[in-house]
Amino acid sequence: MDTIVEASAADVVADLTIEEKASLTSGADFWTTKSVERVGLPSILLTDGPHGVRLQRADSDHLGIGDSVPATCFPPAVALGSSFDPELLERVGSALGEEAQAEGVGVLLGPGINIKRSPLCGRNFEYLSEDPIVSGVLGSALVRGLQSQGVGASLKHFAANNQEADRMRVSADIDERPLREIYLRGFQRVVEDEQPWTVMCSYNRLNGVYTSEDPWLLTKVLRDEWGFEGLVVSDWGAVNHRVTGLVAGLDLEMPASGGRTDAQLVAAVHDGSLAEADLDLAARRNVELVQKAVRNARTDATYDVDTHHALAREVAAASIVLLKNDGVLPLAADASVAVIGELARTPRYQGAGSSQINPTKLDSALDEIRVIAGAGAGAGAGAGAEVAFAAGYDADGSSSDELTAEAVAAASAASTVLLFLGVPAAQESEGFDRDDLELPAAQLELLDAVLAANANVVVVLSNGGVVRLSGFADRVPAIVEGWLLGQAGGGAVADVLYGVVNPSGRLTETIPVRLADSPAYLDFPGEHSHVRYGEGLFVGYRWYDARDLEVTYPFGHGLSYTSFEYADAAATASSDGIAVRVTVTNTGDRDGAEIVQVYTSVSGSSVVRAPRELKGFAKVALAAGESREVEVLLRRKDLAHWDTRVDEWVVEGGTYTVSIGSSSRDIRSTATVEVEGDAVNAPLSMNSSIGELIEHPVAGPIIMQAFAGGGEGDGGPNPAGALLADPAMFKMMASFPIGRLASFPGMPVTMDQIEQLIAASNGR
Amino acid sequence: MDTIVEASAADVVADLTIEEKASLTSGADFWTTKSVERVGLPSILLTDGPHGVRLQRADSDHLGIGDSVPATCFPPAVALGSSFDPELLERVGSALGEEAQAEGVGVLLGPGINIKRSPLCGRNFEYLSEDPIVSGVLGSALVRGLQSQGVGASLKHFAANNQEADRMRVSADIDERPLREIYLRGFQRVVEDEQPWTVMCSYNRLNGVYTSEDPWLLTKVLRDEWGFEGLVVSDWGAVNHRVTGLVAGLDLEMPASGGRTDAQLVAAVHDGSLAEADLDLAARRNVELVQKAVRNARTDATYDVDTHHALAREVAAASIVLLKNDGVLPLAADASVAVIGELARTPRYQGAGSSQINPTKLDSALDEIRVIAGAGAGAGAGAGAEVAFAAGYDADGSSSDELTAEAVAAASAASTVLLFLGVPAAQESEGFDRDDLELPAAQLELLDAVLAANANVVVVLSNGGVVRLSGFADRVPAIVEGWLLGQAGGGAVADVLYGVVNPSGRLTETIPVRLADSPAYLDFPGEHSHVRYGEGLFVGYRWYDARDLEVTYPFGHGLSYTSFEYADAAATASSDGIAVRVTVTNTGDRDGAEIVQVYTSVSGSSVVRAPRELKGFAKVALAAGESREVEVLLRRKDLAHWDTRVDEWVVEGGTYTVSIGSSSRDIRSTATVEVEGDAVNAPLSMNSSIGELIEHPVAGPIIMQAFAGGGEGDGGPNPAGALLADPAMFKMMASFPIGRLASFPGMPVTMDQIEQLIAASNGR
Repeated sequence: MDTIVEASAADVVADLTIEEKASLTSGADFWTTKSVERVGLPSILLTDGPHGVRLQRADSDHLGIGDSVPATCFPPAVALGSSFDPELLERVGSALGEEAQAEGVGVLLGPGINIKRSPLCGRNFEYLSEDPIVSGVLGSALVRGLQSQGVGASLKHFAANNQEADRMRVSADIDERPLREIYLRGFQRVVEDEQPWTVMCSYNRLNGVYTSEDPWLLTKVLRDEWGFEGLVVSDWGAVNHRVTGLVAGLDLEMPASGGRTDAQLVAAVHDGSLAEADLDLAARRNVELVQKAVRNARTDATYDVDTHHALAREVAAASIVLLKNDGVLPLAADASVAVIGELARTPRYQGAGSSQINPTKLDSALDEIRVIAGAGAGAGAGAGAEVAFAAGYDADGSSSDELTAEAVAAASAASTVLLFLGVPAAQESEGFDRDDLELPAAQLELLDAVLAANANVVVVLSNGGVVRLSGFADRVPAIVEGWLLGQAGGGAVADVLYGVVNPSGRLTETIPVRLADSPAYLDFPGEHSHVRYGEGLFVGYRWYDARDLEVTYPFGHGLSYTSFEYADAAATASSDGIAVRVTVTNTGDRDGAEIVQVYTSVSGSSVVRAPRELKGFAKVALAAGESREVEVLLRRKDLAHWDTRVDEWVVEGGTYTVSIGSSSRDIRSTATVEVEGDAVNAPLSMNSSIGELIEHPVAGPIIMQAFAGGGEGDGGPNPAGALLADPAMFKMMASFPIGRLASFPGMPVTMDQIEQLIAASNGR
Repeated sequence: MDTIVEASAADVVADLTIEEKASLTSGADFWTTKSVERVGLPSILLTDGPHGVRLQRADSDHLGIGDSVPATCFPPAVALGSSFDPELLERVGSALGEEAQAEGVGVLLGPGINIKRSPLCGRNFEYLSEDPIVSGVLGSALVRGLQSQGVGASLKHFAANNQEADRMRVSADIDERPLREIYLRGFQRVVEDEQPWTVMCSYNRLNGVYTSEDPWLLTKVLRDEWGFEGLVVSDWGAVNHRVTGLVAGLDLEMPASGGRTDAQLVAAVHDGSLAEADLDLAARRNVELVQKAVRNARTDATYDVDTHHALAREVAAASIVLLKNDGVLPLAADASVAVIGELARTPRYQGAGSSQINPTKLDSALDEIRVIAGAGAGAGAGAGAEVAFAAGYDADGSSSDELTAEAVAAASAASTVLLFLGVPAAQESEGFDRDDLELPAAQLELLDAVLAANANVVVVLSNGGVVRLSGFADRVPAIVEGWLLGQAGGGAVADVLYGVVNPSGRLTETIPVRLADSPAYLDFPGEHSHVRYGEGLFVGYRWYDARDLEVTYPFGHGLSYTSFEYADAAATASSDGIAVRVTVTNTGDRDGAEIVQVYTSVSGSSVVRAPRELKGFAKVALAAGESREVEVLLRRKDLAHWDTRVDEWVVEGGTYTVSIGSSSRDIRSTATVEVEGDAVNAPLSMNSSIGELIEHPVAGPIIMQAFAGGGEGDGGPNPAGALLADPAMFKMMASFPIGRLASFPGMPVTMDQIEQLIAASNGR
């Protein structure tokens, strides 16, 4: 085996038959690639991620509901994203790699970095953000960590898989700018920076073409433009037409087709409809992946369950977002507390579907609160502060008079209520979207009843997608957004509630006042297998800001138990981008961490832009009273927009405003900087407008002269002169393509003269 | 000439040379077609409309700024639309036809029925509504009236010319449903019902193709689907590529190209790139148009200037919309009144650009108010009630301390202030769009100053596009929306203010609280010559209703000096559509007219729909105390949506709610009715989802049996059975295309079985 693993993949492929090469490009079963015994090429194991290793038992049903080998259930992406902490995510990636190695897994299927286009998307818990920079930076960190352990990542779902409804067929119809700037930008970053071993194509179509067979996406963009060197694997069952897919750049069909589609490839080679070189290329990439996995495999690998559990707790605590706090938090360890809500006892810690992990342990918030309260109350209090509990509602979200009465009694007897609310598990899953943003009615009724008994209610949320909070946010003193926090989330929640950890998580998605305010509200999830992304570039906070809509909590928002001040913002442009410096001071009396967010805007931009776009961020830990200068580099390529005139990334020149803040709507300091623009080669043509000619340095003076001075045309009157003198008429005239002038008698220039002028202006 | 006019057009064309045929398909000059002297074919005259006959003098500069022959300036479309009165518009069309006949005009270029997509569109004053039924019904009335006089209409601008910015190049990128249901629906109605002699293609591109050379638009849709029999003329200068345009269905290029493009056609016939039959067809349509115009020409035609002026006044009065009235209106004739605002003395009565009419007369509101006040005060008051006047601001919209002081003094001395505000002429024109919805700052400051002196302020507006009123609507007791009312608008305003006419106009477009709330705000007017219609179907009130946004005044809104009650709504479905009956009673003590509006919605619709869609309306005049049953037929074809699965109009079956009201948000009575749906032929396929199979009467039971009962597949485990038992997994599974099952080992059915099942289900 050693020989074949070290051999040139091209040489290996050269020795294979057509049938063997075809066989390499689809799975042997649900989770393994095919070996080629004849030449000693082994198979490797791919397994579901992304927030844990879901290795299915041999007797499983394979489709996501069966048992799997126990593994650490780290917080899903919805939580990880909120940490805004690439170093931490790299450690998670590395830990995932260790567990994968221990289980003999060569490729872990993740991370998923699709944009959260609508808060209803059923799989939002598996995704990082509504913003492509956040998705890209944090996605890169996960890949970096994972691959540092010799385990391949599978960056997914490529691309524009932003809903579960009709996901196997729906065409995401997206214009070029939002596609490039929002939906592909994160993928581009991860590919260019980290070279994931594999990229997983998605189920859906993109502008009418299945991503599994889109040569533009899988080859032109992914390989030719971004330089991807790895393998493209299908999402499980995503292959529509196998031969078309292979030609487009899909190297590996998963799972197995029982040889049926391999035979199609072989037949296509024989009948000439598939070039053998295309098959060779896909086979070579499969050989390379197997070689890489085998070379990196550590047969003696193990991991420490407790260490990983502790990491899961650390990460979960860093992912919690303190949305509101009127001062009730953090709790003193000896506070009189009632914990209400079944979710405190029976945690929701991950979403349903292919990512569902069988955890090594599982902590509940109730137990962990009791641990802290018990320890903190000290010897004088005997066994520690008593923490009352009332379920309030069932696991399915329903309540009863009896459950409510118990909860009200517990609330009345305590000084502070920790009320755990959340979305029932049955509503959040891969495979379908949510219908609304509402918490269960029974929970909201419970909230009202509890509030009537005790106003001092801290709401602790468990949810994979955002929920509407506008119904009660102004009626409770504190809200803790606990997302789905993985197997150690219960301890993390306790840590944050009691101030063992000072919260530093931030929202990577906006919490809107109403679903009806959200950008995709009217066209999500589309109909008859098409969904138009009508909001264009204006996804997430870009929409709420551009339409100046009130939100409940903005993108980037999150509180701390301390406070931070910003000063001395400065921005310097270079060929690398914009270096931003700002001094941040912890002005409170607790150590804490701030997420410094840097947004840009361009005054008088020639293209459509959101009012503010996140271009960089940094997490900075500061001791109480500490002050530090933070530097954030905004990469020049992240400043670019996709210029649809030339189909290229272009950095627009001009004055950039750099807004540094604690959320997208809490800008603390700004600086301006001049950025030199990219040259754009957009020559004048007969289709250029008169206004464009007038603005042109060469053509401008000549055309003005011709129009003002009278005709050299067909000798009739010169209406253009009169038009130039009238401001309204000038505006009307300016939009006229120069080539159309010939339709109007009496114009002061001939077509020949215009053609000469354009040639001269273009330097020809 | 008689002979050639009566001859078969095909015979005429058969006698022409290629050069003569080509020459017929472009203009001789700005306003006339080419004659063919050799065979005695005359030329005809086309002239700008739409709200008057703009016949340019021979020495004019031709481009819209020169003098034209005096003609009655009827109210522009923005006002006409607000009348909601097809009978009245038919009379206007007829009067326009009389004037055109008197001037020897064969085709009057109008009406324009483009949808008001954004309130910023500079040409909105030339368009009727944000709603396609209103545009279609009223556009039909204008064409009917005009053509009743033997003058051809030119329905324009076909199609999707909804902005002026970059109008000569911009591609309106619109999905099929909004294109069909919103932007083309009005055109379809007018073409099918009225057969306008000509349709004018627009300047812009539609989904990337110039409308002047779009065979789908000009031939497939316009002629093959709608049965158009007339001629397609280019907007002036809209031809991009002459040969391509002619093949696509563009019959006449206007204005003249000096023979240049005619020669291109001839050359194309000679080199075989243009079939002579295509040229023959265009030439024949030009001959037919000339024949029709000449046959219908009345050389002795005249019209009565005073009669038409009176009609212009009647129409203007019916077009005024009383937006708000706390009881201050109508004025008593002897009321103490101050008129403030230069617009009362120097009216804005039409927009700028090609539609600008040289009026036969021009009335100012100030003069007409003084006439009514003077007459009404009677003998006892001597020369009648004194009506003070202060200009308040200049014609360009600027003010001064002196002008303000005069206005405040006048306001202080009167009991009621009539404050005329409006958009300056320089801001509303063909050729460019507005930048915002704001009244001039100086006018708003004047309003504040006047209000401080006298709270009893009636605001009278002059504007071609809607203006933002949310800044003061709650601070004044009455607002009169006077739009641009044509040459007799001054008298009409006076008539409404003093109750000589009881107002009955209604908004054909929503007045939003803010520009940022409007549907096209973020993508209007696009960039780099593309504009995405991202709001899709949700244009105008459809957007505000679907997103549940507050508006200042909703679509369909308008007050009367009397009040109306609705009762006994009933709806009956037939093959013609839905017949709606409702009893309307004038419950006040003044005669008046109500616009009964009928909206539909479909509960549980399978496609995206606005909450309410206008499907019919009726204007009903009722004497004080009178009660009448009103019947409105909602045509079945207007109930249809464009089904993108089959590319056909489809009426969805089910329960329709018919909402009858006085505005889109003032529903007075509802009824429900069962509507039988159209059969849609969408057979099952390998791409049908499992959910679709399960719902199918034949396939459903069989597939459920197979899944529940266990496998006949490759003999492995049957995961499908377990999946069906879990509700969440069932939802996930239901979206799976049946053909993809083959990718998953152990499925309970083989591909062959599935193919047989589909064939059986489709009745094959």
